[in-house]
Parts: sequence; C-alpha cells; structure tokens
Amino acid sequence: MSTTSHRTQAAGGAAGRAADRCFSPESSTRTLARELYAEVEGLPIVSPHGHVDPRMLAEDIPLPDPAQLFIVPDHYVFRMLYSQGVPMAELGVPSRDGTPVEGDARKIWRRFAEHFHLFRATPTGLWLTIELETLFGVEEKLSAENADRVFDVIQEKLERPEYRPRALFERFNIHTLATTDAATDTLQHHLAMRERGFARVRPTFRPDAVLNLGAEGWRANVERLAEVSGIDVVDYGSFVAALEQRRAHFRALGATATDHASIAADVAPLSEAEVGAIFVRALAGAATAEDAARFTAHMLFEMARMSAEDGLVMQLHVGSLRNHNRAVFERFGLDKGADIPVATEWTRALRPLLDAYGNDQRYRLVLYTLDEASYSRELAPLVGHYPALRLGAPWWFFDSVKGMERYLDAVMETAGAYNLAGFNDDTRAFASIPARHEVWRRVVANWLATQTLRGLMDESDARAVARALAFEQALDTYRLA
Amino acid sequence: MSTTSHRTQAAGGAAGRAADRCFSPESSTRTLARELYAEVEGLPIVSPHGHVDPRMLAEDIPLPDPAQLFIVPDHYVFRMLYSQGVPMAELGVPSRDGTPVEGDARKIWRRFAEHFHLFRATPTGLWLTIELETLFGVEEKLSAENADRVFDVIQEKLERPEYRPRALFERFNIHTLATTDAATDTLQHHLAMRERGFARVRPTFRPDAVLNLGAEGWRANVERLAEVSGIDVVDYGSFVAALEQRRAHFRALGATATDHASIAADVAPLSEAEVGAIFVRALAGAATAEDAARFTAHMLFEMARMSAEDGLVMQLHVGSLRNHNRAVFERFGLDKGADIPVATEWTRALRPLLDAYGNDQRYRLVLYTLDEASYSRELAPLVGHYPALRLGAPWWFFDSVKGMERYLDAVMETAGAYNLAGFNDDTRAFASIPARHEVWRRVVANWLATQTLRGLMDESDARAVARALAFEQALDTYRLA
Amino acid sequence: MSTTSHRTQAAGGAAGRAADRCFSPESSTRTLARELYAEVEGLPIVSPHGHVDPRMLAEDIPLPDPAQLFIVPDHYVFRMLYSQGVPMAELGVPSRDGTPVEGDARKIWRRFAEHFHLFRATPTGLWLTIELETLFGVEEKLSAENADRVFDVIQEKLERPEYRPRALFERFNIHTLATTDAATDTLQHHLAMRERGFARVRPTFRPDAVLNLGAEGWRANVERLAEVSGIDVVDYGSFVAALEQRRAHFRALGATATDHASIAADVAPLSEAEVGAIFVRALAGAATAEDAARFTAHMLFEMARMSAEDGLVMQLHVGSLRNHNRAVFERFGLDKGADIPVATEWTRALRPLLDAYGNDQRYRLVLYTLDEASYSRELAPLVGHYPALRLGAPWWFFDSVKGMERYLDAVMETAGAYNLAGFNDDTRAFASIPARHEVWRRVVANWLATQTLRGLMDESDARAVARALAFEQALDTYRLA
Repeated sequence: MSTTSHRTQAAGGAAGRAADRCFSPESSTRTLARELYAEVEGLPIVSPHGHVDPRMLAEDIPLPDPAQLFIVPDHYVFRMLYSQGVPMAELGVPSRDGTPVEGDARKIWRRFAEHFHLFRATPTGLWLTIELETLFGVEEKLSAENADRVFDVIQEKLERPEYRPRALFERFNIHTLATTDAATDTLQHHLAMRERGFARVRPTFRPDAVLNLGAEGWRANVERLAEVSGIDVVDYGSFVAALEQRRAHFRALGATATDHASIAADVAPLSEAEVGAIFVRALAGAATAEDAARFTAHMLFEMARMSAEDGLVMQLHVGSLRNHNRAVFERFGLDKGADIPVATEWTRALRPLLDAYGNDQRYRLVLYTLDEASYSRELAPLVGHYPALRLGAPWWFFDSVKGMERYLDAVMETAGAYNLAGFNDDTRAFASIPARHEVWRRVVANWLATQTLRGLMDESDARAVARALAFEQALDTYRLA
Repeated sequence: MSTTSHRTQAAGGAAGRAADRCFSPESSTRTLARELYAEVEGLPIVSPHGHVDPRMLAEDIPLPDPAQLFIVPDHYVFRMLYSQGVPMAELGVPSRDGTPVEGDARKIWRRFAEHFHLFRATPTGLWLTIELETLFGVEEKLSAENADRVFDVIQEKLERPEYRPRALFERFNIHTLATTDAATDTLQHHLAMRERGFARVRPTFRPDAVLNLGAEGWRANVERLAEVSGIDVVDYGSFVAALEQRRAHFRALGATATDHASIAADVAPLSEAEVGAIFVRALAGAATAEDAARFTAHMLFEMARMSAEDGLVMQLHVGSLRNHNRAVFERFGLDKGADIPVATEWTRALRPLLDAYGNDQRYRLVLYTLDEASYSRELAPLVGHYPALRLGAPWWFFDSVKGMERYLDAVMETAGAYNLAGFNDDTRAFASIPARHEVWRRVVANWLATQTLRGLMDESDARAVARALAFEQALDTYRLA
Repeated sequence: MSTTSHRTQAAGGAAGRAADRCFSPESSTRTLARELYAEVEGLPIVSPHGHVDPRMLAEDIPLPDPAQLFIVPDHYVFRMLYSQGVPMAELGVPSRDGTPVEGDARKIWRRFAEHFHLFRATPTGLWLTIELETLFGVEEKLSAENADRVFDVIQEKLERPEYRPRALFERFNIHTLATTDAATDTLQHHLAMRERGFARVRPTFRPDAVLNLGAEGWRANVERLAEVSGIDVVDYGSFVAALEQRRAHFRALGATATDHASIAADVAPLSEAEVGAIFVRALAGAATAEDAARFTAHMLFEMARMSAEDGLVMQLHVGSLRNHNRAVFERFGLDKGADIPVATEWTRALRPLLDAYGNDQRYRLVLYTLDEASYSRELAPLVGHYPALRLGAPWWFFDSVKGMERYLDAVMETAGAYNLAGFNDDTRAFASIPARHEVWRRVVANWLATQTLRGLMDESDARAVARALAFEQALDTYRLA
C-alpha cells in the first residue's frame, strides 16, 4: 500500500490525478500535454450539434432531480444497467404502453449507485465522475453506501439559482449551442431567446420525420409541415417549397446547419417524374419500402442542392439501425439504447452527390460514421480531397478517450487537421457538456504531445492544432465565425 | 554492448524480463501492472472452452514426445513453417491419403528448431518460450544448435510422474476445464472421471456435425445420433427429440454450455413445414447447398430455444472459412492451419434470435468473431444492451498480446467489463494452458494500469476488473459458479 | 517557455529531435530504438516498387525547379491544398482541356508555402521536412515569410552536379530501384543503362492498359502491343503470346516482377471458349462492362500461370476507385489525388488462384491493400499459411508513421516477419526516397524496441527482424538476391 501511495504521489496525488486526467503516464508526454491543454482549457465551448431542449434555456427551467438529470433520459446509462439485468421500469424510463415505472427519484438513484461498478472504464463513468467533481463538488466514488448522501448534495445544489440553465450557460463559457429541431418546429423558444437578445443558441434543421416515408406518422408530419409553412403540400413541388420555406425560417432564427440521419450513405437523385410519382403514392398511403429508400436517397441530394443555395451546412449521420430490440421499442419507444450500428460504404454511395456539389465552395457536408473501419479507408481520403467535405467528430459510441484516439490516429495523417470539424458533444444532457469537451481537449492535447515528442511536428504547430480542434474548426466548419 | 546490458539491467535483468513480460516499458505503468498482476497471478484457471482430449485426463495418459506435444497437432506451429516452405510431411503431420510422413520425433523437433526464427514476435513463440521456461526449466532460446539438448531435457521430464496430466492439472491450479464434444459422443471419459469424483472437467455440447447438412458424413452422424440417443431419427421432430436427449445427457455429466460454428451469423427460423421438408430431403441425400444454409440458420434458432429452456450457455464462433487450401485439405484433412476468416455482419443477422430470446434471462449467448472491425461497430453495442449477450474473449488469431489489447481498446468503453466473458484458452495443447492464461492476465493488468495512471479509473476499480476478467467473468458467464 | 526548452533539451534538443524522430518519448524505448536503428540506418536502399522515370536516370537529367520537384507532380501535396480551396490550376497542375495553369515556379512555391500548415501531422509534411533538412540543409519550417529564401536555397543546390540523379543515386545508397513500365514499353532507357553497365535499375511489367478492356484507348494499346512484340494480335491466343513475348523482353532487361491494379481482388479463370469470345467482342469494340470485369479476373489468373512459369514475382494492388471526382478527372486527368479506396474481400476472391498456384514454390504473389480491416482478418492469415504469398508494405495513405504502426500491430503476430515483403516507397518523387525509407526503418526500430522491452522478443531477434524488414525481405521477396 505504501508503494502504491508513493507511486500515486509521484504521478501527482489525488488532485494531480484529476489535473492530469487522460494524459499519458509517461512524464515528458504528460508535461507537454499539460502545456497544450493549458492553451485550450479556457477557450469558449462551441457546441454546433446536440440535443439540448431549447425550452429549458428559453424559460430557464431549473434542472430536474438527480435521477431525471443523470439517469432517466440517458440511454448510455440505462442501456448498460439493462444489459446487466436491471429492468428499465425500475430506472424510471417512461413506458408508452402504460406499464407502471418507478417514479421515486431517490430509489432510481440508489439502483444506479448500486450498479455504478458497471461503468468502470467507460466514458459514461468518466463524464459522471467529472461532473460530480466539477459541478457538484462530490469527490467520492458513487456507491450503494453513499447514494443517499450524494443524492442530497446534488439535490441541494440544483435548487440554487446558480444552477439554473442560464447561469450554467455562462459558467460553462458556451460560445454557441445548436439544438436539433424538427422541420415542423415553430422554433418559438429560439424566437423568444432572440427577442431577449440571447443569440448564442441556434436551431438546426432536421427534416428526417418528413423525409422518411416509412416513419411512423409521416402523413401527419407532412400535414404539420403544410400548416407551419403555410404552403399546401399536394405534390412533390409543393413539398419542396414547404421545406424551403422552413429552411428560410430556421436561417432567420440563426440556424447555420441541417442534420440528416440514414442507415446507408446512398445519395441518388431521381427524375422529376419518378420522385413525383413516389410522393403521390406516399400521400395516398401506398408507398412501398423500396419507395421509401429511394425517396430518402433522392431527398439527400435535394437537401444538398438547397444547402448549396442557402448555405446551410449539411450534416449526415449514417449507420445506426434504430430500435433493434423490438420488445424494448414496443414498451419504451425510440432512443432507448437499442440502436445498433451497421457497416457503411461511403465511396460509391456519395458519388452522385459529390459529382454535383463536391467541388462547390458554397456547399459543405459534414460526415459522421459508426463504422470505424471507414475512417482511414474512405472518410479521410474523401475529406482530404473534396473541398465541400469535412469529417465530423467521433460519434456516439466513439465519443470516448479511446474512440477519440482511434479517430485521431486513423484520420489525421490523411485528412490533416483542417478537414476535421472539431468537436461536438451531441448530447441532450446539458450539464455534461463541459465534461465532454474537457475529455476531447485533453485527449487532443495528449495526442499532439506524443506527436511532438516523437519529432513529427513542432510545439508551435501542436499549439495551433490544439486550438483548431478545440475551438476554431467547429466555428469554421459550421459557418459560425 | 555494455550500454545494452546496462539498460536491460535497469529494466530488471533476465529474471526481471520474465517477471515483467507483456508490461509497458514506462516505469509507473510497469510498477502498477506488477501490482495488478500480483492480484490475479495466483487465481485458479477457468477454462470454459477448449479442445483438450478428455481421454488423456480420464486415463492420465503420459504426455507424448516433444514433437507430438508441441508441433504435430498444433496448426499454429506447422502453418507458419509451411508458409515458409517446410513440407508438412517433414513435420510429421499425418496424411489421410497414405502419403508417408516423418515419424522420427527428434527429426521433426530439429526441423522446428532450425526454423524457430519464424516465430519471432508471434504468440506461438511467446507461449513456447513461457512453457519451456516455466514447465521445463529451459531458459535458452531454441535453435538448430541446441535442438537435441532441449529435446532431451523435455523428454526426460515428460517421463516423470509429476508431468502426468492429472499432476499437471493440479500444478496448473485448474478450477474448471471444459472439453468440446460431438453431440454423438457417449462421454465415457467424462463419466469415468465423475465416477472417480473428479468433476472439474466438463463436456461441451457441439452438434455441428449433425446440424450441417453439407458436412462429410452427415447421414452417418445422424445414424450415430439415433443410436446413442435411443431415438429413431426419421423426421425433423425425432431429430429434435434426439438432440434434446443428448443435451440432457451432457448436462447430467456436467455440461453448462454448447458450442456452434458457422461461416455467417445468420439465424432465421423456418416454419415447421419448411424445415420438415428440408430434413426429409437431407435424409434422402437430396439436400441442396441452399437447404444446408437455411437449415443451419434455423437450427441456431432452435438451439437458442433449447438453451432458453435447459439453461446451457450457447457459444457462437462465426467467420472461419474452413479448409481454404484444397490441396492441403485433400492430403491432410481438417484443421491444418488453412482456415481463413471472412467479414462478419452481426446486427441484422442476429435480430430474429434476439427478438425471441435477447431479453430472456434464462438464455445466454456468447459471441466470438474473427472480424475485429465488428468489435466496436456491432459487438460491443449489442452486448452492451441485450441482457442475454456476452462477448467472448479474443479468438484464434487474436489470442495474442496485441490482439488482446485491440479487443480491450475496442470493446471495454462500450460494453463495460461485465458484459465480457473473461478468457478462454480454446486450445488442444494442454501443456500450454497456463502460458495462455498468463499472457491474458498480464495484458489485462497492463491495460488497466495504463487506464488507472491516466486517471480513467481508480486502483480499487482496476483491481476488481482485473479479478473479474481473470476469473470471475468466466465463472459467471458459463454458469459455473 | 523555459520549462519547454528544458524538456526539449532533456529529449535531446533540436539536433536530438531529428536524431530521435519517430521514436517513443519513453526513455528506455528511445534508447533501444536508437540502437536498433543504428543497425539498419546505413543499409542500402532496396526499392522494388515505384514510379521513378527511367529516362531521368538513363539520361541523368537534372532535377527540375522546386515547384516541379515537390508540388506539381505530387498528388499527396496538391490534393490536400485543393481540399482546402486552393485551385489546382494555381498549383501548376497541367490541365488536359487547355485551361491555363500557373507556370511560374516561384509563384506555385509561394502558394504551397502559405498553406504549409495544412501538412501538420501528415506524412507529406514529415517527408518534406526530412528532405529539406537532409538534402538541402534547410532547417527552418516553410512559411509564407521564408518561401522565397528557401526556394532560392533549393534552386541553387539543384543546379550543382552533385544533385544530378545519378550522383544522388549513389549518395542515397540505392542497391536496386525498380520502375513501373507499360507492357508496351520498349524499355529503351533501361536498355541504355544496362549497355553502360548500370544494372541497378530494373523495369517492372505492368500490363493493366492492355488487360482492362474498359480502359480509354485499349484498342490502341493492343495495337501497340502487337507492334512492339512483333506478334499480330488477332485473337486471345495471339494476345497471350504477345504478352509472353513482352515478359521475356522485360526479364531480359532485368525485371523480376509484374504489377497489377484492380478494384476487386477477384480472380476467376474462364474457359478458352469464353475468354476467346470476350476478346473477339473487345477487338470489335463490342465488349460490355461485365465482359471487362470477367476478363480482368481471368487475366489475373493467366498472369499467375505465366509467373509460375517464368518466375516473375506478381504484385496485386487492390481497392482504389480511380478518378472519383469527375470534374477533376475531366479537367486534369488521371492520378490527381481523387482515387478513393473501397472495402476489399480477399478470402473468397483469391481462392481460385490459390487453388492453382498457392502451394507452388515457383510462384510468388505480393498483396497490397487499402482496406486496413483486412490486415488481421484476411491478409495475415493468408500469407501466414500459403507458401506463395507475401504481404506488401503499407500502401499509399498508410505509408505513414501511424499507418506503418497499425500494419505491424495487425499483421506481425499472425504473419510473422518472414511473410512480409519489407518496404517499398512506391514513389515518383525520386528525391524523397531516402526520407521514406528512413521513416519506415525508424518506425520498425521503435516498434521492435517496444516489443523487446515488453519481453516479447530478445534483442538479437529484434536486430535480425530490423535488418529483415529494412533490407533482406525486399531482396528475397522480389527475387533480387
């Protein structure tokens, strides 16, 4: 034990551990990583893609209790507990079939605390540890024993005015935060914020619900689109006009980007006649699965055309097979930790889009993958050539220390730093935003320190790249500068 | 040379080198890795999947000569020699076409020793080095010069009573060893061991030879199944009944698991009529290749159903294209180092099985892959969500220092430690078991030391995970506790 | 800043930085890496695959100006600048549609220098840095400020006799340099060199232009083949005879290898009747895309047959989708940085070839991939079994520090060192050859140092493997010894 204590001290002690989190144990690397991190630690946070609720910020609604803050809405958390046999109902995850679920925040928190060992060596465990320490001053590791005490500490803090969302927004030093909003959203909360002069929150145009003919409620979504746009959607032409109207509305309220999700990267324009016929079939409730796939591939092309014209940066998130677990989907609905990746082909799939817009300086497309094999094989070569392309940050499961390192290892040499989109936290957990950016900045600093000490770049270049990846590339990529 | 000696001494000298094998050269990592390894070094070995011959243990048959022990049955060894032009016949690999092969153990050993440089930086070289040191006290590196001398040292030891299998079983501190046995096996050696009160060896139910309609001798295997089960197999219903009878027999003799190999992960149940018709065609010798593929995909589903009912843990080893080298297969038969992996899709392929049993606490499925790209893309997300799933240890080519490190790097953050199956050695080389577990335990200790020193977990968590991965997870996953 | 300086000094200072380039910052690793590198640093360069112009060497034509030397012909360089919005015309890349392009070398150089930050952390940046330092004595980092000064320094040196190609050939200590030459090439420059007794430059037989029925100008290429071979190509039989005549000619002028590129690894022989019919259709200008794909797969088989007979080592480069960017292709033509990789399947694709020649000691096939996922999954197991196979060096995008490390990590444990082909620089940039070999040798030395200090091999084995990978394996694989 004394040996251990001695070593830990040599590496900096408890306080030192937090200060050097994510850095290599090798001493020259650690020293330089510290210096590079110091360069970027204080930079404002740019969060150009995420899922924070704009109403919470517009109305400055106090954060909820610890269970609602950390567990109930976070599928990273409950899917891990579920995988080890903890029923989702006991974690308070709301059911859509009327099954009763646990409603007592303290009980939910205890259940989580009892199983906190499941998060050893995971990014979820790391973010929570950082949040507890940094935001709530809790230094001890969560456990069955201290669950109630920690709950009380958090709960007490959450009631303070300085823990209200707008106060935290300032404390977190957020330069820009983009939300993700349906094409049919009126953006009333964004409007309200702008009217009060708070323009650092921006909407993002996400039309998946009206582009995917096979989605539950597509017909109703299209009706809603007609309603909010004031354009009667009776055919493909009026549908496109309504989408263009919404894009203009989003832009007027600060949007600089759109976001699109699909299972495959296929982009393939149809003739006017073909797409018109499919749209008519869909309105009549007679579209086939093949119609839906072709329509999605066509609409991605149409969206690229609109982006080239209106300048909204296009984001494409590919490769998640949603709602893989039928029983969980039927009982609990969407986004319940049961979305499983599939392999993604990019080189052939994106070619029609790139033929049309890949060399167009007005157009920008940011690509996100769940298939790490495509980083070095397809994505880095693509973004390292086409002026319109940028590679998005490591996404979802790869938003982790090793996921980030694999990303930097796989793409930097071919893509260079300036074809990368910097970082985005992609989170609905507002309070976790600083922890996620901190991990990215630390991992980048450590990675660059290693490169520098290996003589592969010099320190001034490492400093410049650290700043670019922490801050400037996100601004530039998303046209926020 | 003096510089070199000095540095090697600083790193611990010759003895120190063995003590720190697999650990990082970085000193704080090495120190902590040592401590974590000390925590698990003495834990009993759990070997829940492997290919040791139960007769050898039941009858305590002395180990064979050095050539038969290390070379002739080990396709890792002779495929490497073959790749560099050494004929398999000169290595004593038995032919099935009557071609004469070398029978002199000492000559075979010399041939191997002359080519020992081929095993530089390979796991085979590492295991052999550890075995020679630990089990036979041979510290010098094998070479053409010392081949005869080393042969004699090993041969002399092998004749001693303390080198008999049962003595080694105790010396190796084996808690449980599972063999792999055909569905048609009577398990007489397992029965004999149990009758003598030795219950630490367990059978595993592997029905591939009766499930694969396209396998050589399928018809004869089904007849043998009827014979040993006492159930006349005349149609699909009686076939299933016979399989269930065998599973019960295996369970009675200690089995806790089944094992299945297939080239693809497809699981797709057929209607009773469909599968019945295929089975009838197969009995009549008229099954097509498509019948065989559909039957395999159906039977994996049927096996899952049986596992949910009888509690046998199901193992699935996917992605090996067997007997790739036709000339080698024709002359030497199965398992001759010419099995080559193919890419594997899991997300869509397993969905029918997971729809039915993925949330069933009675059911457990352990997945093994030869496609490392699927670790982070599909497997970690699947096992990190479905209660029924565990991810098996790095398999076959990946049972190596770097293979293990890539596995831990790719899966731990998403799957967590407790959705992993721990380690299994998967070997037919009984004497190599401790070396293989030692490498795993050392690699895990080193990996956790790095995580800890980077501030990503604390030391008590690292100790707990080290114990879990070395011992507890294997017991728990295979329902051996 | 003083801390920084102190640390940099501890790691060796500016001179030390260059001396320890690519090595780990960990001190014991760095020390051993230095020793291992010292073992191989002075070995002659073997360059068995590349694209240097033989005329330049035959006629000892002075190297061109800095823009033509470093930028204009190097798609690694201009594709990165293009991805960040620098027009290719401003970089002097010649157009084929008559569009005017920049012709002033100094202006092109300035444009490059202004954007030199884009090459931070890239292999292109590293090679250039090494070349500037080692060949031109330029120690400062290129920038807009020093662009003219550096241009002048390089330009002045390039005019000296000791910078002529043949002088550099000696200074670079090149043992063998292979060029890549069309099947229809008369090899006049090779002949001229041999006549003057300079036999260290060898041609490589690359027949892609006559094997790919779909290539621009295939018909004209076949006519040229007939002309240079003196064999009238009227059907498949005479086509094969003409190819055999060319192979004999290449062998007579020192060739030891052939080279083949294809998008997929498929090899599938056709019947004489089938291939004859396709060839007749092609001569008539009536071949389909399917004909072309089948013909390529057949011809790879035919080429293997010829290699088994005449002993030319066959190289196969698979997986590049050429000319992905239509606009760039139309304006600038081939090889303009817009070749994007696709996933590659090897296990099934190569089986017909390996059935026929995989065990044939006369035959050798060297495989190159752009799909790193296939390294550990398919390629290492294949070359670790089949006597005829070797795995080529990390290719194209992976010819980088991290690309080389991923390659060694992924393949060495399964393939061993002696089934690898060593290194080749694959470059058309003659002056960059030493830098590329230096990076490989340093990365190998560092990798082996780590393995050694982790107790996974001993120092004498590490020395032997370092020599093998730096020099001996290239000689042996390409039958140059």
